[in-house]
Amino acid sequence: MAVGDEARQAAGEQADLLLANCNLVNVLSGEVHPAEVAIQGGKVVGIGDEYEARDTIDLGGKYVAPGFIDAHVHIESSLMSLFQFARSVVPLGTTTVVTDCHEIANVNGLDGIRYFLDASRGIPLDVFVMLPPCVPSTELETSGARLEAEDFKPLLGDPLVLGLGELMNYPGTIARDARIMSKLKLFPRGPVEGHAPGLSGLDLSSYIAAGPESEHEATSVAEASEKLRKGMYIYLREATRARNLLDILPLVDGRNSRRFCMCTDDRDPRDLLERGHVGSMVRMAVKAGVHPVTAIQMVTINSFSRFGLFRKGAVSIGYDADIVVFDNLEEMNVSMVIKDGKIVAREGKALFPEVPEPDVESKFHVAHFGPSRLKVARGGDRLRVMGLVEDQILTNSLVMELTDRNEYVQSDVGRDLLKLAVVERHEGTGNVGIGFVKGFGLSSGAIASSVAHDSHNIIAVGSSDEDMVGAIEQVIRMRGGFAVVAGGNVLESLELPIAGLMSRKPVEEVAGKLKSLNTKAKELGCRLEDPFSVI
Amino acid sequence: MAVGDEARQAAGEQADLLLANCNLVNVLSGEVHPAEVAIQGGKVVGIGDEYEARDTIDLGGKYVAPGFIDAHVHIESSLMSLFQFARSVVPLGTTTVVTDCHEIANVNGLDGIRYFLDASRGIPLDVFVMLPPCVPSTELETSGARLEAEDFKPLLGDPLVLGLGELMNYPGTIARDARIMSKLKLFPRGPVEGHAPGLSGLDLSSYIAAGPESEHEATSVAEASEKLRKGMYIYLREATRARNLLDILPLVDGRNSRRFCMCTDDRDPRDLLERGHVGSMVRMAVKAGVHPVTAIQMVTINSFSRFGLFRKGAVSIGYDADIVVFDNLEEMNVSMVIKDGKIVAREGKALFPEVPEPDVESKFHVAHFGPSRLKVARGGDRLRVMGLVEDQILTNSLVMELTDRNEYVQSDVGRDLLKLAVVERHEGTGNVGIGFVKGFGLSSGAIASSVAHDSHNIIAVGSSDEDMVGAIEQVIRMRGGFAVVAGGNVLESLELPIAGLMSRKPVEEVAGKLKSLNTKAKELGCRLEDPFSVI
Repeated sequence: MAVGDEARQAAGEQADLLLANCNLVNVLSGEVHPAEVAIQGGKVVGIGDEYEARDTIDLGGKYVAPGFIDAHVHIESSLMSLFQFARSVVPLGTTTVVTDCHEIANVNGLDGIRYFLDASRGIPLDVFVMLPPCVPSTELETSGARLEAEDFKPLLGDPLVLGLGELMNYPGTIARDARIMSKLKLFPRGPVEGHAPGLSGLDLSSYIAAGPESEHEATSVAEASEKLRKGMYIYLREATRARNLLDILPLVDGRNSRRFCMCTDDRDPRDLLERGHVGSMVRMAVKAGVHPVTAIQMVTINSFSRFGLFRKGAVSIGYDADIVVFDNLEEMNVSMVIKDGKIVAREGKALFPEVPEPDVESKFHVAHFGPSRLKVARGGDRLRVMGLVEDQILTNSLVMELTDRNEYVQSDVGRDLLKLAVVERHEGTGNVGIGFVKGFGLSSGAIASSVAHDSHNIIAVGSSDEDMVGAIEQVIRMRGGFAVVAGGNVLESLELPIAGLMSRKPVEEVAGKLKSLNTKAKELGCRLEDPFSVI
Repeated sequence: MAVGDEARQAAGEQADLLLANCNLVNVLSGEVHPAEVAIQGGKVVGIGDEYEARDTIDLGGKYVAPGFIDAHVHIESSLMSLFQFARSVVPLGTTTVVTDCHEIANVNGLDGIRYFLDASRGIPLDVFVMLPPCVPSTELETSGARLEAEDFKPLLGDPLVLGLGELMNYPGTIARDARIMSKLKLFPRGPVEGHAPGLSGLDLSSYIAAGPESEHEATSVAEASEKLRKGMYIYLREATRARNLLDILPLVDGRNSRRFCMCTDDRDPRDLLERGHVGSMVRMAVKAGVHPVTAIQMVTINSFSRFGLFRKGAVSIGYDADIVVFDNLEEMNVSMVIKDGKIVAREGKALFPEVPEPDVESKFHVAHFGPSRLKVARGGDRLRVMGLVEDQILTNSLVMELTDRNEYVQSDVGRDLLKLAVVERHEGTGNVGIGFVKGFGLSSGAIASSVAHDSHNIIAVGSSDEDMVGAIEQVIRMRGGFAVVAGGNVLESLELPIAGLMSRKPVEEVAGKLKSLNTKAKELGCRLEDPFSVI
């Protein structure tokens, strides 16, 4: 057969890069087999034949797998800019994320979503966006934006916009709420992400029939099994707080594993630094007895198939050359990451330069904030108080007696009764909501934060109105962030100037600040391990 | 949670049809589990909960699986109209076919493709069409049409048109022939079907890099393994002649089974009547030791996923209610078939009415055909002869001595030297190609056919020019078909008036005629089991 030069080139004989002497984790054939991988023009063009290439790397028997994908992540939870997030996860083998822009959209609306779309150009991480259907997530709070189906239309042509993010409003979905249905109609063939913790039976059936196709909130085999049987993809999740991989893993077998993906959902910077990213979940699964190829399929081809992403997620001919190289199938220490055929990380170090990121307005429309805004007139002898339950998002509702006769109600550190304020920052309404909380433990000072799910107004807790004002003012001054204040001094703070949610600093610095903030809060008596993730 | 009426209905509580007391082959969860299946508006709306429905069928523990899909079939090979094909395969559990219109397009071009698209409306069989890229399949013959990429454009918006059919011209593909590449560009994200028997190494890599994503021609584990590793879907094929399922099945395991589909490619009416359709392949696989759910996945969700067909191929919530009911997991005797929520076959009988089919021109532009057109002047003392090899498409090339001194060369039945004529029928060119064949065995009479891959001109073989003319005239008179003629009499014939390729008669009748034609040919001395599939 006569083969022309162009065809020889297409066959990889004159490739850009040849990965020689490697063991290929072939997620299509389900094997690990010795191979050569030829790459050209950002694609894999050959496997296992004899190629010539401009550059050849002898991998000395190392393992080669497709770059990993996080099927569902809120990048905002990393507290980092997209560039810094990429710099932290790409060297770990992640080359693609599907991000649900729920948090930033609740602050900045479409501009927030556009931040991720625009910031992703020029970095070696594919960032696919799911449009958040629940902005606002509740009518009870003032959020920074309101997004209807019509608002999303300008984004629908963007190839990075895949589908609809997690549909948290399951009661509304079951009731076929018109606003929700009109958003579902934007993506009649999906993908649409579900979010229905604990839902079962007829209500679950009705929810699925409306459109949502995945669940990352299942916490038991029984729950995941019903959802799997009823058609949902199951995303195994290991967030910083919600960790469900090992609970659900026993459900996975050779006839259904394709329906499982892996996701981190929300990982904070310390967790990214210590545990890593989705690669850490592969290691967990392998350690728990899952075949390494099956585990790797769950962070590669399974998710790419679920999202209909064509010729991605495998090291095979015609596929994007997004590749991770590691030493063995148990520890999977990543030594090299290739994105679109280019080496972008080695030995844990990102090799790509910082690119300018778009600005996002960090909205702090709070005028003349002072102690008078925190005054609460006494309404009687009793006070309704939230009782915090450590490591749970749940709170108890308590009623406590007031023991003094003051005109205004104040924090009472002797009884661990602390004032909590939510300061509206998006619309300049001047609204301040005040409550009381027990279980926080501050005996002096105050803390404040502009990261407060899901509307991300400023939230502060403190032993005195003065320190609360100080902490809130520090957050406003930084255009977002975390602050610990005592005796009028800022003891520690972290700037989050991107929408009040994210830093432009590297993961090491952000994680360090977060640890330091926790230490300072603990020194003030705080009993919570991680007060900034609670408030 | 408050649930409105509409939502309760969506949840299947007021369903159209309830399949109660069944064992569900759940191709998503990979299990067989007891279930109730609620159907409404042609979709599955509930599984396993408590529903009310207008009609309830107690299946008494029978098995319920998704309707089967044939991933690659040339319906023309059934010799039947689409309606009659549907009538023969739907009661066997097939509810979807992906048909590659290569044969009819080589005769009638776009009109041939439109025949399948139009004829599929109103019958309970989803017929998805792959556009044939090789029309004509060779420049050496006169076919009835020539289709370039531009010609396909009017069909691209049709939801039944999925992608590009089998790309048989692999040398041209490897050479990046411009006409082929422009057809591939019509479907940049596929699906595109491959056809590259025996291709391997760099040539295979180059072929795959150009676009083709599947292979149904692999005949060994080694061949299929290389193609699987290099990214191709493997279609296990059991055609009437080419049978490869058992050869390749050992390659299938729990980590790669999703990449395997099943197809019949070409099954003649006797085979459809005796072995059945893709369900027969599931039975073979199960008998060979494959888990029944894995085997059923290969005729359901695997193929639907491969073709990107959304919410089809599983009995699960939101999926099309295309369902097959059978008695057990070994013999799988089908007792009921449901299409879009309606019962369309019971106990092997189709329950749907015949619908009027569109006409397709049956082109027989052959004027004044007579014995003079078969005359071959003697060119020397030797004759080049094709030697047929029974049960293979391959032929040997022989050279035989002429033993007489006649001016014109005639068939010599004493030495089994038979004249073979190909009569151009599409363009009215008057072209007749004549050769000689050994191994056919006719001692008297002649046979003729208008089914002659891939251009489907009229082909005839005979012991005398007179009977060859008689057989050819009979085919022309019928506007297509098969004929056996001897001593000037038509001994048997089958009309194929749809493009000269297909009958409007039921499978039993077409199969009966085919058997009778073979018997008559055998009585005339024919040594081939199946002369009409050879010529």
